[in-house]
Amino acid sequence: MITGKNYIGNLLSSLGKVTFKTFNPETNTENEYIFTEASEIEINKAVELATEAFKEYSKISGLKKSEFLNQIATEIEVLGDELLKVYCEESGLTKQRAESERGRTVFQLRSFAQLVKEGSWVEATIETAIPNRKPTPKPDLRKMLIPLGPVVVFGASNFPFAYSTAGGDTASALAAGCPVIVKSHPMHAGTGEMVASAIIKAAEKTAVPNGVFSNLNSSGIDVGVNLVKHPQVKAVGFTGSMQGGRALFDLAAKRKEPIPVFAEMGSVNPVVLLPNAVKNNFKKWAKAYAKSITLGSGQFCTNPGLLFGIKGVDLTNFIQKLASEIVKIQPTCMLHPTIIGAYEKNKSTMQNQQGLQTVVDLKNETPTNYGRQIITTVEGETFLKNSTLHQEVFGPFSMVVQCEDKEQLEQIITNLEGQLTGTLISDGDEIKAYETIVNALQNRVGRLIFNGVSTGVEVCGAMVHGGPYPASTDSRFTAVGVHSIKRWVRPISFQNWPDNQLPDELKNENPLKINRNINGEQTIKPI
Amino acid sequence: MITGKNYIGNLLSSLGKVTFKTFNPETNTENEYIFTEASEIEINKAVELATEAFKEYSKISGLKKSEFLNQIATEIEVLGDELLKVYCEESGLTKQRAESERGRTVFQLRSFAQLVKEGSWVEATIETAIPNRKPTPKPDLRKMLIPLGPVVVFGASNFPFAYSTAGGDTASALAAGCPVIVKSHPMHAGTGEMVASAIIKAAEKTAVPNGVFSNLNSSGIDVGVNLVKHPQVKAVGFTGSMQGGRALFDLAAKRKEPIPVFAEMGSVNPVVLLPNAVKNNFKKWAKAYAKSITLGSGQFCTNPGLLFGIKGVDLTNFIQKLASEIVKIQPTCMLHPTIIGAYEKNKSTMQNQQGLQTVVDLKNETPTNYGRQIITTVEGETFLKNSTLHQEVFGPFSMVVQCEDKEQLEQIITNLEGQLTGTLISDGDEIKAYETIVNALQNRVGRLIFNGVSTGVEVCGAMVHGGPYPASTDSRFTAVGVHSIKRWVRPISFQNWPDNQLPDELKNENPLKINRNINGEQTIKPI
Repeated sequence: MITGKNYIGNLLSSLGKVTFKTFNPETNTENEYIFTEASEIEINKAVELATEAFKEYSKISGLKKSEFLNQIATEIEVLGDELLKVYCEESGLTKQRAESERGRTVFQLRSFAQLVKEGSWVEATIETAIPNRKPTPKPDLRKMLIPLGPVVVFGASNFPFAYSTAGGDTASALAAGCPVIVKSHPMHAGTGEMVASAIIKAAEKTAVPNGVFSNLNSSGIDVGVNLVKHPQVKAVGFTGSMQGGRALFDLAAKRKEPIPVFAEMGSVNPVVLLPNAVKNNFKKWAKAYAKSITLGSGQFCTNPGLLFGIKGVDLTNFIQKLASEIVKIQPTCMLHPTIIGAYEKNKSTMQNQQGLQTVVDLKNETPTNYGRQIITTVEGETFLKNSTLHQEVFGPFSMVVQCEDKEQLEQIITNLEGQLTGTLISDGDEIKAYETIVNALQNRVGRLIFNGVSTGVEVCGAMVHGGPYPASTDSRFTAVGVHSIKRWVRPISFQNWPDNQLPDELKNENPLKINRNINGEQTIKPI
Repeated sequence: MITGKNYIGNLLSSLGKVTFKTFNPETNTENEYIFTEASEIEINKAVELATEAFKEYSKISGLKKSEFLNQIATEIEVLGDELLKVYCEESGLTKQRAESERGRTVFQLRSFAQLVKEGSWVEATIETAIPNRKPTPKPDLRKMLIPLGPVVVFGASNFPFAYSTAGGDTASALAAGCPVIVKSHPMHAGTGEMVASAIIKAAEKTAVPNGVFSNLNSSGIDVGVNLVKHPQVKAVGFTGSMQGGRALFDLAAKRKEPIPVFAEMGSVNPVVLLPNAVKNNFKKWAKAYAKSITLGSGQFCTNPGLLFGIKGVDLTNFIQKLASEIVKIQPTCMLHPTIIGAYEKNKSTMQNQQGLQTVVDLKNETPTNYGRQIITTVEGETFLKNSTLHQEVFGPFSMVVQCEDKEQLEQIITNLEGQLTGTLISDGDEIKAYETIVNALQNRVGRLIFNGVSTGVEVCGAMVHGGPYPASTDSRFTAVGVHSIKRWVRPISFQNWPDNQLPDELKNENPLKINRNINGEQTIKPI
């Protein structure tokens, strides 16, 4: 079923010379399939097809787009256990995780299908003419959101389904009316090809134009760089490392026509432990955090990498309990040798920082392809002075920062880089005494969590998965939930346009029965 | 009343060494006031004050923000004829224009006051918890828009009120909850200082924190560059030239923490003249366009610089009529000697392009400080091959492109750069036969106009003033209308947050009675 070829629109193609294989991290061996990296000719062809497809696809009805998206979900399910098997072989993640991530992925696709079928998401805003207004007549103006054009999607290594080939970026861009070209993740190229085949099948069954989707293999950076530089590409979605995301952002900013790049680049997800909570519930929170830190071998962008508390016997108790709980958890293999390599390197960079103490480290007790959890601790003063300690270590690594007092805690939070999440652990009303700290934390994050863990990103309209830089390259958008569609659309206004030539969304009679803002009133009434 | 000093928050300050004067383009002489450019110390102080003010200002109620914005409008009106006098002395524009632009400016301020007083603009989206959901409970998630932080505003030379000190960028940023630092436009520094004094007075009367607004004088690029590079500045609004806007965009993209720059950089605003309209109504449209091209000496970013038609006797008739109408119009002085200089230079660059014919040129008939209108024409083929002909000439310059046929017209439209507006002139239903051209035009612009002129930008919620690059640096936003507030805000999500600690917008009881989306339903009901 896996050919190792690229999908250039609905055609399988392998004109390139560079080949590569994926790796099974559980068995520590290469997988059998051979993938061919997309050549420049194929890259250009994919973009040309997408540009041509955009003419029709940008205009098709929400109903037709919803059929397409729903069909993608169905086709992914049809791939059944074979798809899960390849997912596990290429990621080392469990079948249970594969199933739950597939569930999340088809749910996302169906959520967007529902959104575009209903149609009100275009934010139709109409102000009707006032011909006799003085000194000048008021024209009729009608505004709605339209798609930007072809979008390039870079999936993440750690979510081969939900943030990859048919993940949130692809689903939201297709829902918006944008053709998508996926730069397939080299670590799960087989999973990528199978999911791509489902999308292509869905495109053919629902008769959307060829070129609405392409899937390009790549083993290095060239394919991605060529895609982002291509003048016909109009936006980029990325989930991955800070280094990768920033490189793409810089490339896009330097183009003759700069284009938006939404890069979600992870974060350390600070957790603030308030004193009474530590004192009264340290066992409960130590247990919860031991689990959260090691979930999926710590390979979540919402993994809690930094915990802050006020120095003292209670915090020491928490640290000890966290250490004793975390060693009870069985380590699991990480996604790829390069990820293990980076984890070990970054961990050791941290451990070499002056003042950092290792509380517990599974170093010598587990296989080398496994993510060995580690708890470290440092004084607030030391943390403030050394920005290396603020960086993300992707994996089951966490650091407890022992602050002198509330003032130092506030100073530390204020000086943190942007984060996806910030969590507050509080014993009941204790939070009220920490308003300035909550405000400082709010200023640094996309999502605030009360008495919980940051891992687990609910897919819903009220979610924000993003945040101030470097959590994302543009804090004004979210990567998760239906509002993530806003990354790929722009408003257009029609002035005095003939009713029969307007898009259905803006016609007087409101044939789509969508919710519109007409002269300031939210209504489904016709004009 | 004009001191020539900077407003660093509510303090007048002039620590710098560089001084400059403004210029009266009507009398061709310098104005009397001496302005002192802001020093680095003053720039840093203004940003520090803004950062400190943000802590409080980002959290104050919509009601209080509306009082502040309304008071700014009132204080501007209180400045009365003295303000209009300085405006005219520094711009050469008429008193009538000054009055109408002031009207637009206070209308904008009051529109934003109304928006934030009502409060639903924060797009509150709530999904309540489902504790017994399987396999995992659904948390309570509540999302709303919050301000980004201190915003730097660069006003335009051509709108000393509406796109400057208290113009749309400032009004929308203050409404969002962002402190504003204005880099005052050197051509109307006196107007800027007077308007700034109105803002400071309003800030004091309504007791918003000091530092919510500062006004910095500048004669060159240093003040602006230092502001955009300052780590505590979180966004930039700019209206002006392509060169200036792109330079700021590049600076902001290169920061350690990149920040959003919304630059509106003008355009040539293509007009497509369909054959029947040209045949049947060429006199009417020639008259309308002669007026639109020369309005305000052509110094509008929506000035129609390019007109496209199908070659033939009808189009020739239109061109002749346009030429004969435009010479009847009395030229007026341009804003500044540097603008006249650029206009003359760019005009002559165009006239030196091979194949460009000058139909009419007032060159030798008017004073040199006046914007002398000119109509040129060129073949479609020539236009396609020479991208210099696609560039904006800021001033009363227009070019009629004579296309061979519909196909060439479509090809030309497809290859245009991004534009603020695109206009279609059609005789009734004729538009139906030009669907591909309309689609191509839609793809290139922020606003489509039917049978009208592009000059005149209505301030309303259904307006889009922006468009694909280089019309703006981010086509996903508008610079005009209440939705322009979205440039300065980001979503944040609160997960399982205690009700009494939530912002009022997200509390169960909905104390502000705003429209919210609760579990998919738009409602003002409490939870």
